[in-house]
Amino acid sequence: MAVQATASFSKLFLSRLMHQYPATLDREGVSGKRVASRLAQLSKIGLTEQQGSHRMSFSDEERAAKELVKVWMKEAGLSIYEDGAGNVFGTLQGKDQEQSILSGSHLDSVPNGGHFDGPLGVLAALEVAQAWQETDYVPETNFEVVVFTDEEGARFNGGLTGSRAMAGEIDMANQVKLKDFNGKSFEKVLEDHQLTLKGFSGSKRSLNKVKAYVEVHIEQGKQLEERNLSTGVVTGIAGPSWLTITFKGDAGHAGNTPMPGRIDPLVAAGEFVLRLKDLPEQVSPSGVATVGKLEVTPNGVNVIPGEVKLTADIRDIDEQWKNQIVAKARALIQEVEEKHGVAVDVQETLNVTPVKLPETMQQIAAEATEQVTGKKAYHLPSGAGHDAMVMGRYVPTAMLFTNSKDGISHNPKEWSTLEHCVETIHALKKTLEAIDQKDRSELL
Amino acid sequence: MAVQATASFSKLFLSRLMHQYPATLDREGVSGKRVASRLAQLSKIGLTEQQGSHRMSFSDEERAAKELVKVWMKEAGLSIYEDGAGNVFGTLQGKDQEQSILSGSHLDSVPNGGHFDGPLGVLAALEVAQAWQETDYVPETNFEVVVFTDEEGARFNGGLTGSRAMAGEIDMANQVKLKDFNGKSFEKVLEDHQLTLKGFSGSKRSLNKVKAYVEVHIEQGKQLEERNLSTGVVTGIAGPSWLTITFKGDAGHAGNTPMPGRIDPLVAAGEFVLRLKDLPEQVSPSGVATVGKLEVTPNGVNVIPGEVKLTADIRDIDEQWKNQIVAKARALIQEVEEKHGVAVDVQETLNVTPVKLPETMQQIAAEATEQVTGKKAYHLPSGAGHDAMVMGRYVPTAMLFTNSKDGISHNPKEWSTLEHCVETIHALKKTLEAIDQKDRSELL
Repeated sequence: MAVQATASFSKLFLSRLMHQYPATLDREGVSGKRVASRLAQLSKIGLTEQQGSHRMSFSDEERAAKELVKVWMKEAGLSIYEDGAGNVFGTLQGKDQEQSILSGSHLDSVPNGGHFDGPLGVLAALEVAQAWQETDYVPETNFEVVVFTDEEGARFNGGLTGSRAMAGEIDMANQVKLKDFNGKSFEKVLEDHQLTLKGFSGSKRSLNKVKAYVEVHIEQGKQLEERNLSTGVVTGIAGPSWLTITFKGDAGHAGNTPMPGRIDPLVAAGEFVLRLKDLPEQVSPSGVATVGKLEVTPNGVNVIPGEVKLTADIRDIDEQWKNQIVAKARALIQEVEEKHGVAVDVQETLNVTPVKLPETMQQIAAEATEQVTGKKAYHLPSGAGHDAMVMGRYVPTAMLFTNSKDGISHNPKEWSTLEHCVETIHALKKTLEAIDQKDRSELL
Repeated sequence: MAVQATASFSKLFLSRLMHQYPATLDREGVSGKRVASRLAQLSKIGLTEQQGSHRMSFSDEERAAKELVKVWMKEAGLSIYEDGAGNVFGTLQGKDQEQSILSGSHLDSVPNGGHFDGPLGVLAALEVAQAWQETDYVPETNFEVVVFTDEEGARFNGGLTGSRAMAGEIDMANQVKLKDFNGKSFEKVLEDHQLTLKGFSGSKRSLNKVKAYVEVHIEQGKQLEERNLSTGVVTGIAGPSWLTITFKGDAGHAGNTPMPGRIDPLVAAGEFVLRLKDLPEQVSPSGVATVGKLEVTPNGVNVIPGEVKLTADIRDIDEQWKNQIVAKARALIQEVEEKHGVAVDVQETLNVTPVKLPETMQQIAAEATEQVTGKKAYHLPSGAGHDAMVMGRYVPTAMLFTNSKDGISHNPKEWSTLEHCVETIHALKKTLEAIDQKDRSELL
């Protein structure tokens, strides 16, 4: 995109953000204009023809975004450290420097994604640090604004790379086998960005020194919008289980094959899709199950299908609950198999362990949200994965969602009003201040 | 395909046909070897790499096949006439030449089709003529072996062109607008094969002079095979109604959208597919309904679909029955629309009037089949269209089906044993002899 078009988009983006922003939200050191201006400046990096964001992980664009954030970190008086995985930490020194509270998110995007997914969480944490700095609030422990590398996983079909590297979760033997969309090895990609395998694996950090992690992220759903709320408190991060299910039957001519005796895999698949939707509610209020992809072979108007391949995406914030829904889905598959005489093959292609966030952390975030918004806090699960899912396994973790317009995400149309963003930033600030007053042991 | 490979396929095809052929079927002038040899010779014309038949309508291959059949017609003592649509008639003179009994089928194929769909019906009629000739049977009326042009419709996405032209059913104003897969106009295609528009429209023939039409065709289904029968009596030809149905819902993230409130068009489509299969049996034993094609948008593992487009192919041999099934399908669509909150669009993309074949003609064919096979005749509908569907609107018509191995058709694997073919030819011969003894008025 031409430089001029990029600049004019950024200007428009900023003025759209500022439109009807209530100046009363600029208080206690938090500046809506500053947040908006930084979102607008980041939007220029990797701007696409469709006015989306294209900042692939380990790309020049992700790097440029990190460098820009580092400039702002310095402006906020933070000292900067970058680990071997490219995770960036901006530290505001606390009274006791033994422990740290972390908050942040990521700056990489999916191809042609939006301008809020990631940047909002980074800028929210940075805004709190800068507000503290400007209002002379010195936290009890260090406060680190973090930018995690490669959250989206668009490059190596993985994701959460920076946070997993920091947690020491990455199996390097497997990691080095990865190739990106250009066939470039993981090591070569690191080298191209002045990183090394050794440095990458050395980015593991002792997480018992981290007192808490709090992440702000857009909801990417419609629950807050439907309830007219700016901010929500996340109950847990639902790890997905993916099943690929193939129903095989007898293809035949749609005219010359009588109904009795047909073995039609699409009829079997139809029953599965219809009944799968009723399974989550039998287990939990947070479970979801979706058939998103379905392919018919040979897919001709006058041919009874021979094969139907579909995927089931099953999620819940509690592992046992998720496993129960998966078990019910498998039982349903078997019932459908017997009833319709089809042959069925089931492959589990993904199984991510979900993470429930601690009640105490939710409570702190809920009280902060209620103070800021004057409305009863709304708790909701996160269906998508976030760095908070990794951190939540080791560290007392909370997550705040910001209202997403129309629930649209991973799309240039992604939008949250500045009013909603800043309300969430105030809630984050109060959450962090409350955490700052407690011991780590009180948070779990 | 190289000449040598073609010759060697044809040899193999012949020896496979002759394998275990019971010589006792060679009687009353009918020769299995002659039928097999002619099928094998026709198989060379348009033979594909996959050993299928590729004889597009109005092509050099269809022309060559017609010319070869004309040679055999002469050998059988028939006088040959070709009309302006390229339909070929070989006439065995009867005692009274005012009327004719017609029997035949077509020589064109679908792309890479089989070697029986069409040729068997032409060679069966020819075999009866030759058997009569050799046994000095002189029919009461003329007997015409007919080769209809362009039954399959692979060239202009139409079909039944020769029989419809003879019946005067073709609207020339529309016909001249057609273009083939190369963008060549209908008129140009005719010209390339020494035909003219004027001659084509002049091929209409007075069908009240046709006493009866009887067509032999492979079943293209498994009903005869499942019952271990060589020959079946067709009750009617089921015209299809095609509906294209689009279900629209709300796309969303499979993780971040709670189950309550979802509007998932694939769930709605699943219920439609599942319940559609139960509708035909509520109306008739011959009705069928099939969803053969289904496409999901955007079709991503973790995305609730926004749109599902599918086709329903509904057929019956009785127009009222078919209309009743279509009406039930439309009511089901409405029920599903209301239940799941989706928006639905329904388009009827095809509606061919089915043709019931007269009971008297079925009875004659059934008695002939029982005499030949010694088994009770099996009546079944034809789900696919045939020239007999066109003829059946004007002329007392019967149709005999020959057992299709595994129900496979429109495929190089298409197969019928010579034993089954010749049994059907004997049944055809007896059917035609019975018809020959009756007045036209007795046949309806």
